[in-house]
Amino acid sequence: MSRILTLTTDFGISDGYVAAMKGVVLTCVPDAQIVDITHQVPPQDIAAGAFAMYGACPFFPGGSVHVGVVDPGVGSDRRGIVVETGQFLYVGPDNGLFSPVYEREKVWRIVAIENEALMRPQVSSTFHGRDVFAQVGAHLLRGISCGEIGPEIEDPVTCDLWGVEEHADALVGRVVCVDHFGNAISMIARSQIDEKYPDGDFEIAIGKTRFDRICQTYSEVKEGKTLALYGSLDTLEVAVCGGSASQTLGIKRGDVICVCRSQDRIGRS
Amino acid sequence: MSRILTLTTDFGISDGYVAAMKGVVLTCVPDAQIVDITHQVPPQDIAAGAFAMYGACPFFPGGSVHVGVVDPGVGSDRRGIVVETGQFLYVGPDNGLFSPVYEREKVWRIVAIENEALMRPQVSSTFHGRDVFAQVGAHLLRGISCGEIGPEIEDPVTCDLWGVEEHADALVGRVVCVDHFGNAISMIARSQIDEKYPDGDFEIAIGKTRFDRICQTYSEVKEGKTLALYGSLDTLEVAVCGGSASQTLGIKRGDVICVCRSQDRIGRS
Amino acid sequence: MSRILTLTTDFGISDGYVAAMKGVVLTCVPDAQIVDITHQVPPQDIAAGAFAMYGACPFFPGGSVHVGVVDPGVGSDRRGIVVETGQFLYVGPDNGLFSPVYEREKVWRIVAIENEALMRPQVSSTFHGRDVFAQVGAHLLRGISCGEIGPEIEDPVTCDLWGVEEHADALVGRVVCVDHFGNAISMIARSQIDEKYPDGDFEIAIGKTRFDRICQTYSEVKEGKTLALYGSLDTLEVAVCGGSASQTLGIKRGDVICVCRSQDRIGRS
Repeated sequence: MSRILTLTTDFGISDGYVAAMKGVVLTCVPDAQIVDITHQVPPQDIAAGAFAMYGACPFFPGGSVHVGVVDPGVGSDRRGIVVETGQFLYVGPDNGLFSPVYEREKVWRIVAIENEALMRPQVSSTFHGRDVFAQVGAHLLRGISCGEIGPEIEDPVTCDLWGVEEHADALVGRVVCVDHFGNAISMIARSQIDEKYPDGDFEIAIGKTRFDRICQTYSEVKEGKTLALYGSLDTLEVAVCGGSASQTLGIKRGDVICVCRSQDRIGRS
Repeated sequence: MSRILTLTTDFGISDGYVAAMKGVVLTCVPDAQIVDITHQVPPQDIAAGAFAMYGACPFFPGGSVHVGVVDPGVGSDRRGIVVETGQFLYVGPDNGLFSPVYEREKVWRIVAIENEALMRPQVSSTFHGRDVFAQVGAHLLRGISCGEIGPEIEDPVTCDLWGVEEHADALVGRVVCVDHFGNAISMIARSQIDEKYPDGDFEIAIGKTRFDRICQTYSEVKEGKTLALYGSLDTLEVAVCGGSASQTLGIKRGDVICVCRSQDRIGRS
Repeated sequence: MSRILTLTTDFGISDGYVAAMKGVVLTCVPDAQIVDITHQVPPQDIAAGAFAMYGACPFFPGGSVHVGVVDPGVGSDRRGIVVETGQFLYVGPDNGLFSPVYEREKVWRIVAIENEALMRPQVSSTFHGRDVFAQVGAHLLRGISCGEIGPEIEDPVTCDLWGVEEHADALVGRVVCVDHFGNAISMIARSQIDEKYPDGDFEIAIGKTRFDRICQTYSEVKEGKTLALYGSLDTLEVAVCGGSASQTLGIKRGDVICVCRSQDRIGRS
């Protein structure tokens, strides 16, 4: 049985919060394999947490338990949930953090965390990451079934985190992440572009910058030059060879990125 | 037997220092479970290191070995020690880092690290974390007894890291940590406040800000509003819903926080 | 058999990139012991990555697999390699990252990574860390031999990363790392200095600062004072007791540091 549990939070790495969660897991399952996805999600930024999980969770072995805690509503009446899919178990607050999971994976069931016997004896109203989600995650590692955790729910909170829209004349997306290298990542998939523009005649627009082709690798252009390419999730990304697209082009998260029929062609036709 | 060893240091995460310590542990105990508490303790800040350990160590399984290295006196004649309590083993410099442990846990014995056979063959005068503390921690994981490490000592360095004082008319504490979210955490315990003010008639003062009640959760006030609540250690904390108390109120570590009889009442009585 | 795999990258800790690599390793070897050396290598800074590995890798048990990914040429025709030494296996791009290994360890063989069956089914052109190096590292943990990975090569990329030169009248080096504490570390070894100046009559120069002796520990000088000493790699380092040499003296990586016959003596002789 899998003993792997991942953690994604906005807790940072300066305090003992993440370690307290790990202690709770290890107290329950001493041989757990605990892996950090990231704890640098900007405070209370659900979309950023969801994106970090999106890029990493699928690469773990089937049966892994993914605990995600970006939880502005901690202590309020927002629900805690466990999402059981064909591949993984997700544990965390019901605030949209797992929205992309509902799109990508086959969801078997979603249960609300209600069984207090599966939480720590004293639940702090400010730290469900430790007292609820880590503890429930550990129990799942031990092999309890979702049915023991609480009643099934049909109405999880969902939200559109990627912002990709198909228009008649364009695919419009947003920069969902500026990564550590300054690459500007959208969720416009290669397959969407291929399908809409089978002739490959399109251009990409972000701010005032235009790209008329998609490179294969960063090094296809000269050092310091901008390019568009498919990144590690096979989605459209804007980068600078050996530099930061975010800095060079002044791109920030949320900026619009467009794929549209190339202007030259439109002019010609 | 527990195979869990935690690490708390001020080494940061940019260099290979922490990894070298882990390599030393794994060379001795290949199946050790090594967990980072934090390595972002401000350089040589013993109180901050103690606080990080205080908030995380208790959540680990009994028998865990907690190695703490915030060690401005490395290479001087300051002692290295192992503290054996009813729950854990602590390893590190004798400079006050384990002071809170002496308060909270039942200490069985404290030994000075003197047996050179339990250190690495060549002890660098600048890196006892690797050559002494990690190595001794690993031996403890292997099951050696404290008696093999060195002579018992009765006079460990202690210091008051929390700064909580009970006055006739007030509980006075300090902000011992501004956490990643900007919450200002004191070590004034809920139980101390309940005992001193059983009628619940008190107010909290920090700088020019006053609170006349203690909230249960962050979301009890509106976004951007300040509040006082009991944090994850069940001690008094000042926060801003969805924001940073440190930034909003200009609070920094060391600032005084007071619980006193409410002024209105004093005026009335 | 060793189950230890270390990771050194310039991926940072904010994104899910490192976790994706770990997921790939654990999918192949569920009980792998994965240890981070650091992920804070400055983007695409091969020398810094090599130095981090140099300071940490040797402390791991024999047979450990060290995966290093600082890879400005990802997706280009730069080779991926595995270096098998008397102690370890190194996996990463052939761009000089393992240069110091060739100096320090007995190299048995170096192979180019060509066997696509040992990569992930779809190799992203921007993330060989995940799709090639983590996967190959995991296969090595499983016990495959280097011969299965690809053909032996004789011409790995090498470069002089330490910049230590012996002149008639001096040992000249460079600051190869300013560490988390602001210590300025060179790769001029204690043994080199001892050999060149057996009488101990030398001085150390960095910028306008001169040191006429090498201390044993930071605390040998007063708080705030500068000193030279041998650091944790037994090489020459410039530090400030309780402070940052980098800030106090304005030292940065790449600065020249010299050991030469002391000027007084030269004047006298």
